[in-house]
Amino acid sequence: MSLESLLQQIKPLNEEAMEKAQAHLDDLTKPQGSLGVLEDIAKQLAGIYGEVPKEIPQKAIILMAGDHGVVEEGVSAFPQEVTPQMIINFIHGGAGSNVLARHAGAELVCVDVGVAVDMDDLPGLIKKKVAYGTKNMAKGPAMTRDEAIQAILVGAEVVADAYGRGIRVVGTGEMGIGNTTPSAAIILVMGNLPIEQVVGRGTGINDKQLDVKISAIKKAIEINQPNRDDAIDVLAKIGGLEIAGLAGVCLGAAAQGIPVVIDGFISGAAAVIAGAICPQARPYMIGSHLSVEPGHKFMLEYVGIKPMLMMNFRLGEGTGAALAMTMIDGAVKIYNEMATFSSAGVSEALE
Amino acid sequence: MSLESLLQQIKPLNEEAMEKAQAHLDDLTKPQGSLGVLEDIAKQLAGIYGEVPKEIPQKAIILMAGDHGVVEEGVSAFPQEVTPQMIINFIHGGAGSNVLARHAGAELVCVDVGVAVDMDDLPGLIKKKVAYGTKNMAKGPAMTRDEAIQAILVGAEVVADAYGRGIRVVGTGEMGIGNTTPSAAIILVMGNLPIEQVVGRGTGINDKQLDVKISAIKKAIEINQPNRDDAIDVLAKIGGLEIAGLAGVCLGAAAQGIPVVIDGFISGAAAVIAGAICPQARPYMIGSHLSVEPGHKFMLEYVGIKPMLMMNFRLGEGTGAALAMTMIDGAVKIYNEMATFSSAGVSEALE
Repeated sequence: MSLESLLQQIKPLNEEAMEKAQAHLDDLTKPQGSLGVLEDIAKQLAGIYGEVPKEIPQKAIILMAGDHGVVEEGVSAFPQEVTPQMIINFIHGGAGSNVLARHAGAELVCVDVGVAVDMDDLPGLIKKKVAYGTKNMAKGPAMTRDEAIQAILVGAEVVADAYGRGIRVVGTGEMGIGNTTPSAAIILVMGNLPIEQVVGRGTGINDKQLDVKISAIKKAIEINQPNRDDAIDVLAKIGGLEIAGLAGVCLGAAAQGIPVVIDGFISGAAAVIAGAICPQARPYMIGSHLSVEPGHKFMLEYVGIKPMLMMNFRLGEGTGAALAMTMIDGAVKIYNEMATFSSAGVSEALE
Repeated sequence: MSLESLLQQIKPLNEEAMEKAQAHLDDLTKPQGSLGVLEDIAKQLAGIYGEVPKEIPQKAIILMAGDHGVVEEGVSAFPQEVTPQMIINFIHGGAGSNVLARHAGAELVCVDVGVAVDMDDLPGLIKKKVAYGTKNMAKGPAMTRDEAIQAILVGAEVVADAYGRGIRVVGTGEMGIGNTTPSAAIILVMGNLPIEQVVGRGTGINDKQLDVKISAIKKAIEINQPNRDDAIDVLAKIGGLEIAGLAGVCLGAAAQGIPVVIDGFISGAAAVIAGAICPQARPYMIGSHLSVEPGHKFMLEYVGIKPMLMMNFRLGEGTGAALAMTMIDGAVKIYNEMATFSSAGVSEALE
């Protein structure tokens, strides 16, 4: 599969199905529009699938893992060895995203797209390593353009495989020590924003580390001169392999005709890249939570989605996407299970 | 049971249990505090129950229904007959709150505390009518002080019964055509706020009806002169029977030592009254969504709770509380199911 052929598969939403869904929503026993976001989601699902599904769709969180050369600058509170250690934790089911994915009735699909060390063969781990982590973007490009495209295609392939197994909703998730640094850099460049508005404390760095992080991002942009009119250039020079993989998940979901729930800050960076590469992919995206990371809201605005959860999360891993999936289930149930005014014998609004 | 004996049962949270819960949360494989609201909830549950429960607690939405004499002023988009019609819809399981309560694994307990007409004996309907609706508060007191206290005690009794059946989390919900009008009046008086900041469009009134609503609230306050230092006086003069019942649910939950999830605008008014009657009841409250009604945020601030869901709901009935209950389940699972740094062999943050 090439990137071009992937993008050609992405079609606009079905407007007629959305109108039909809206008419049914307006006939349910509630003031019109009073179930807000759940009604919006039901309508969006109709546009994506061609109708609101009768049953709760099968769900998966696709968690992409990758490492970052920029950690040598000292941008993270945690050592790089935590990336592979957490993958083992995901495989054993003990991480936050495992718990919340189970809570949401979703499987967690864990993909090594760019971890810095070789991973053992672990049951359920998908090994699609494009490189042993990125290079230090403060000194040069994080990866080549070819590597960025390869990682995008990994994401799309994983979605295609999941679709083949019956998955009809995917959510994004990631693991990669240091990955709020490239994510902040991406929204800074793509959104043309001041650096203070997009850089946060990630997993919990102190003031000194924050200065280091800001400095690393400035250096990365200065040395690489990423071109904001070419999202793949931005992704390759100041991005990450798991970010590229997740951009591929977004594009792959749109290509398969299924919704993709966007998690937090790193997933937001991936959505920005995917939404820039292919604006037609944006209507397939569903927002989840609003991250503590200050740049997250700009990412959501960039792709035109809204958060529905205010959980003060700053963990990533797909934890917010998993919780939002339970809201999608709620939307499907509202559409299918509520009585109509006529069936329930309830009077409608006065004129 | 008297109101005094009810209030005497309300005890402060268990600080020691909260500290113990915090220590465990900090040992789980995630940056400290990175699961935000879910961690806050787990800690609060520990303080309420004495420990974080090992299993998901049994849940119920307690939906109080009552009518409002003030509808004769023309404050609502729907006719008053919708209140009993919707009760039948609740009993048949076809309303939004039924769907979302089922989604959350909660039962829906429907209580007639003040519907304007006699209700048939319906399976599951709890008939505890204190009066046939309130009187028109734009012309005089909505109810007597005794009626307000009686309705509070109904709420507390329903919680006590639910507790006896094993319910360990309750959520608030309500039905009552016209009930955003007294709710706005309550927060206006209790919060000493400008009227424009607290009055919204309820189920969807037009500009002319909005003027009527504002005028009715002004008249109600002018004629009744409710005393903001006496919450029961405010409740009786410009409140509602279902609002009083829900204030009783809040106080009753605190008395039983279980959390109460506060739904939207009308439930918020009830929480304000309960929190004013007994500030010690406030730590038993858990926020749910932020309503479209503009006065809701002031109610949540008044009692010191935060919303976690931004669903653009304006339906009430406990729909937001039901969704928030799924987050409480998530918090319990996070606490019990996540691996610790030592058990998972994951490195902790660098110093």
